[in-house]
Amino acid sequence: MKQVYDVAIIGGGPAGLTAAIYAARDRLSTIIIERGAAGGNIINAEEVDNYPGFPDGISGFELSSKMHAQAIKHGADFLSADVTGIKTEGDLKIVSLTDSEMMSRAVIITSGSERVKLGAPGEKELTGRGVSYCATCDGPFFKGKSVAVIGGGDAALYEALHLTKFAHNLSIIHRRDKFRATKAVQEKVMAQKNIDIIWDTIVEAFEGEGKIQQLRLKNLKSGSNSNLKVDGVFVAAGLKPNTGFLNGLVELDNQGSIIVDERLGTSIPGVFAAGDVRAHSIKQVITAAGDGARSAFYVREYLEA
Amino acid sequence: MKQVYDVAIIGGGPAGLTAAIYAARDRLSTIIIERGAAGGNIINAEEVDNYPGFPDGISGFELSSKMHAQAIKHGADFLSADVTGIKTEGDLKIVSLTDSEMMSRAVIITSGSERVKLGAPGEKELTGRGVSYCATCDGPFFKGKSVAVIGGGDAALYEALHLTKFAHNLSIIHRRDKFRATKAVQEKVMAQKNIDIIWDTIVEAFEGEGKIQQLRLKNLKSGSNSNLKVDGVFVAAGLKPNTGFLNGLVELDNQGSIIVDERLGTSIPGVFAAGDVRAHSIKQVITAAGDGARSAFYVREYLEA
Repeated sequence: MKQVYDVAIIGGGPAGLTAAIYAARDRLSTIIIERGAAGGNIINAEEVDNYPGFPDGISGFELSSKMHAQAIKHGADFLSADVTGIKTEGDLKIVSLTDSEMMSRAVIITSGSERVKLGAPGEKELTGRGVSYCATCDGPFFKGKSVAVIGGGDAALYEALHLTKFAHNLSIIHRRDKFRATKAVQEKVMAQKNIDIIWDTIVEAFEGEGKIQQLRLKNLKSGSNSNLKVDGVFVAAGLKPNTGFLNGLVELDNQGSIIVDERLGTSIPGVFAAGDVRAHSIKQVITAAGDGARSAFYVREYLEA
Repeated sequence: MKQVYDVAIIGGGPAGLTAAIYAARDRLSTIIIERGAAGGNIINAEEVDNYPGFPDGISGFELSSKMHAQAIKHGADFLSADVTGIKTEGDLKIVSLTDSEMMSRAVIITSGSERVKLGAPGEKELTGRGVSYCATCDGPFFKGKSVAVIGGGDAALYEALHLTKFAHNLSIIHRRDKFRATKAVQEKVMAQKNIDIIWDTIVEAFEGEGKIQQLRLKNLKSGSNSNLKVDGVFVAAGLKPNTGFLNGLVELDNQGSIIVDERLGTSIPGVFAAGDVRAHSIKQVITAAGDGARSAFYVREYLEA
């Protein structure tokens, strides 16, 4: 007979790992299913300086490792696998994996978010050929090169600051006339002499033969076009929730985020959502972790009802 | 001319300190006002093992100190003072202190919660005379003595476990027939040979001359009374929100918790609430910290609108 877990947690970022710490500590049989490494998006963050408890900052990788160790220590199982779907069978939840499936009494969806693709011509074809979504991963390939970052939030500005270590010329392309990033991060960018900021501008096309060579830009105020020669481009223009694999199982808002009630319950009883993937998340490590703890609390309530 | 802060944070526990980290890092002029030491209730927690990022556990005092240092590092001010009230004057908020006042454009109430008093005869008179609300603080006074803990949640069971280091006889008095504490904590209590659990029982009176000598108990199932000789009693029967000082400024629920909308806004524009003090808090360090970050995010949104 197959094991039925009390709770299956889909995604091993801060929300999922915290849900696991709480659920396992409460002696629910708990499994975290993660397709990549534990930690989610923060793995690639060189320094997290706003997670409370680490006044000197901590790397995203180290913070993830600690949370992962804590979940395992309290008794959670960790499975490396890709979830391809979830369905219900009476009160049971069936989680489909690439070539098997597993069962649980409750599910917490903590599948997080990933970088928005702009959808401009050439972007897809040139991804991995100079077009990247992770400066921490790919920055070192661009020593002495001309690089552009697209976006205006914290992620974009952090990527730009990181890239100053490698790039010779660095531009930030932003569609508005001011950044939405945290002020302290904006100040750091403004203090850099070698960052050129291109305001009110969008990328209309990624162009190049076999690798990125230039961006076709459009100024939204003047309507005029121009080209920018680049050796590398980092797209950091927002995050979108990872909810495609759910195939309409639970209700989503028009951003594709999971709609939850005040107990983090979705439209399906026994299926909860926490962290970046749910509607109205502010997409911070600490808020995702807080959500994770709450979701485990409400899972216990659901299982005991 | 008096300084007007962008945001005044009332209470320096995990919610307030995290709100301060976020607000100050976003270059809002930020002040935390705390009547005691930074950290709130967790200061007295010997070990916090469910705050994500510390797999080996961390003392509440050390975790508080780190959060405090982080808030100061990012630029928040910290004021030791007792807030006696808050009022509005146009868009400004006036925070009254014992013998002065200060002004801010927004307020985040993170005043937390404190132990419920049972309200039984003798409780008040014998507080500090063998009746205590903090085992970490007062446990060492009861070496070799007979001690009772009242309650059935995490706090009560942690207190009992701590007191096994000192007490000779230890009873837990709980009004129900099972604990609501986290299972892992229940297991630790059950594994102790010297803890006697008195189920289905309430305390009707605290009795003694000048110091506690016995508890008058009532079994709720049989209706019968009995006396329990004790040298010390620790009351851990839940938490109530610290909202008395608000004098009806914002809407409260029937527990006295602050009612908030999904952006943590209260019934007064520009006044937010986060952590244990708000309705539907599950009163965990990680959820309070998550709330703090969210409240600072929505304060920025409010100030920029």
